[in-house]
Amino acid sequence: MDMWEQLSAEQLKEMERQFEIYSQGVEDIIPLKELKNKIAKSILLNKPLKIKLGLDPSAPDVHLGHTVVLNKLKQFQENGHIIQLLIGDFTGKIGDPTGKSTARKQLTDEEVKHNAKTYFDQFGKVLDMEKVELHYNSEWLSRLNFEEVIQLAGKITVARLLERDDFEERIALGKPISLHEFFYPIMQGYDSVVLETDIELGGTDQYFNILMGRHFQEKFDKDKQVALLMPLLEGLDGVDKMSKSKKNYIGIDENPQEMYGKAMSIPDVLMIKYFELATDLPLEEKQRIKEGLTAETIHPRDAKMLLSKTIVKMYHGAEAAERAQQQFISVFQERAMPDEIPSIHWEGEKKIMIVNLLVELGLQKSKSEAKRMIENGGIRLNGEKIGDTQLEIMIEDNLILQVGKRKFIQIKMD
Amino acid sequence: MDMWEQLSAEQLKEMERQFEIYSQGVEDIIPLKELKNKIAKSILLNKPLKIKLGLDPSAPDVHLGHTVVLNKLKQFQENGHIIQLLIGDFTGKIGDPTGKSTARKQLTDEEVKHNAKTYFDQFGKVLDMEKVELHYNSEWLSRLNFEEVIQLAGKITVARLLERDDFEERIALGKPISLHEFFYPIMQGYDSVVLETDIELGGTDQYFNILMGRHFQEKFDKDKQVALLMPLLEGLDGVDKMSKSKKNYIGIDENPQEMYGKAMSIPDVLMIKYFELATDLPLEEKQRIKEGLTAETIHPRDAKMLLSKTIVKMYHGAEAAERAQQQFISVFQERAMPDEIPSIHWEGEKKIMIVNLLVELGLQKSKSEAKRMIENGGIRLNGEKIGDTQLEIMIEDNLILQVGKRKFIQIKMD
Repeated sequence: MDMWEQLSAEQLKEMERQFEIYSQGVEDIIPLKELKNKIAKSILLNKPLKIKLGLDPSAPDVHLGHTVVLNKLKQFQENGHIIQLLIGDFTGKIGDPTGKSTARKQLTDEEVKHNAKTYFDQFGKVLDMEKVELHYNSEWLSRLNFEEVIQLAGKITVARLLERDDFEERIALGKPISLHEFFYPIMQGYDSVVLETDIELGGTDQYFNILMGRHFQEKFDKDKQVALLMPLLEGLDGVDKMSKSKKNYIGIDENPQEMYGKAMSIPDVLMIKYFELATDLPLEEKQRIKEGLTAETIHPRDAKMLLSKTIVKMYHGAEAAERAQQQFISVFQERAMPDEIPSIHWEGEKKIMIVNLLVELGLQKSKSEAKRMIENGGIRLNGEKIGDTQLEIMIEDNLILQVGKRKFIQIKMD
Repeated sequence: MDMWEQLSAEQLKEMERQFEIYSQGVEDIIPLKELKNKIAKSILLNKPLKIKLGLDPSAPDVHLGHTVVLNKLKQFQENGHIIQLLIGDFTGKIGDPTGKSTARKQLTDEEVKHNAKTYFDQFGKVLDMEKVELHYNSEWLSRLNFEEVIQLAGKITVARLLERDDFEERIALGKPISLHEFFYPIMQGYDSVVLETDIELGGTDQYFNILMGRHFQEKFDKDKQVALLMPLLEGLDGVDKMSKSKKNYIGIDENPQEMYGKAMSIPDVLMIKYFELATDLPLEEKQRIKEGLTAETIHPRDAKMLLSKTIVKMYHGAEAAERAQQQFISVFQERAMPDEIPSIHWEGEKKIMIVNLLVELGLQKSKSEAKRMIENGGIRLNGEKIGDTQLEIMIEDNLILQVGKRKFIQIKMD
């Protein structure tokens, strides 16, 4: 019998209300029906659900891609459920025993702690960190002995593990899989056993690992968690998943202006996805914008400015968001200079080749790079585009040099 | 450079002498050249080699099939090398976590100890147990924590493990392999790392597991052991590997007469193999018999009597062997009764159907079995074969009933 059949009409309405919120923007819920049952159970027993997010302690820079799950967690938190942030420090401390993967380098206790703190500082911009449960899986995993590991390994088959996409692929390509790699999904699954997690969140790339939680909870006679998989957010290039290594990200620690500018560079086709996944606007507002864009009653530029402002507001507040927008308008839309421009004191030659000046000021790495930038129309002097790579100029006080779209520098002579 | 190139002429002779002994009757030596190097090293450094045999603590009944490796170990022991008997008690204590295999049922500490003692008592009939090193792998394996297990697992690939024949087969048939099963060969390999084994012995069915020792010793920067694989001895049926479950075995604890009789039932074609693998006769003697049988200058019956007597002598001494042989001759070759026949007191009807008598005396399970035995010529009354299944007889004092070749019973009336 399904849990929700025991709900009163009012409780049923509450269950449906929560269900609608949680399932918004989600890529997959496995199994869908179970999510309703979990919510129903929590309402019936007046007991919060335990919502888990696993974190890799080796890469603590949080960007907008991460906030997709954070925003979803926030929805659960706002409805009184318990967030379990799980730092996979045991994994981080082990590193890669084969020494082949530099991504899995061994972390010290201090690094783990430092990285965890960095996470939490940033997460605090989305979640109420005082209500969050923090867990380190070394707490239980480091205590397992060989016999217990064997017992754990006895609860899963080799074939089941080989189903993971990247394992399957490597087997097909004849690329080696080191046996210890099997244990990362097993650990993640066992964490859910220990934490008695009701719902585990993750990106769609976590599909296999999160289902491990269901597998092991069942083997340990626990209630099975629901997997709630969020879409992966493409980065500014509109192609790859947002990531630090691809340099297509907006970090949530970036300054308001940088953040606003980067958000304005998101491809139009991704705008609705960003509204859905990366903002905390109310459902109805998101719906209104989506319909407006589709019906072309909202101009894409206006929508994108709203998106950028909303994102800045989430991480820096309303005032900073307003300022970032004004500055953006004056610089980019009116082609005027920004209000505040960093200045530099010049003590060199007054007469200088433009390419040499760019290199000396550290604005370009080499003369050839500087030339290329000029040829691409990327250099302006007092607002005027420079076309001649051989140009020689006379330095004068308050000369404003612009590189690319957003980098300005004012030269001071005294 | 090969070790043996450093040997003096005399030392080289000694190396070749040992090498000839050790390689006799062996199915495979991996790698062959390394065995020579190991012996050479031991001669050069005047240091005994460490020869390992792993034992499963769950099945302590030792039969002639086991003695194939024991006899080989004895040769090493006689040349001053150290025998490492490794009781796989850690494995035994774990059992099968999936609960599917009854063969791998969990043993208690007491059972492990009892079984180990049973082994050693029996091994003492072949080896000098005072010079043997005893090891229990729980000593080091039970101390490994999860992190150390992961480090261990990082030293082998999934593909390498799947190369094991039975794994490969099960994958092909879609039969599940539980992940913990991967750890049995890993443990066996790691044991050799800890014990710094030079040579590991086993039947050819241990091929994969023993090579694990080489694999892990290399990963731990140790000298790699040599695998010395002995042929599997077929049982009395001449078909299957000798094993308790197939009931085709000669236990080394069986009484002299039973042992002699069973040995006489070995198929002729296996005689030479038994001489080679299951007796401790000198090489030249084995060679003489082999040539004699091939040239037909030795009668197979005489050879088999020598084989049986030799086997009994190994486990019960010369006198018992002689007695067993004499008794066998009188019973089987002269078709006479044995000296001592167990008697039974008869109080039933004097006139009785032969089939009923056989069942009542517990000599046959059912009338239909008794009939079949008569039809096969397996029943004799006072030495005369009975041909009629409907025969009715009159019981008289001292009537001797013979069932099969070796079972006699004398009926007493008072």
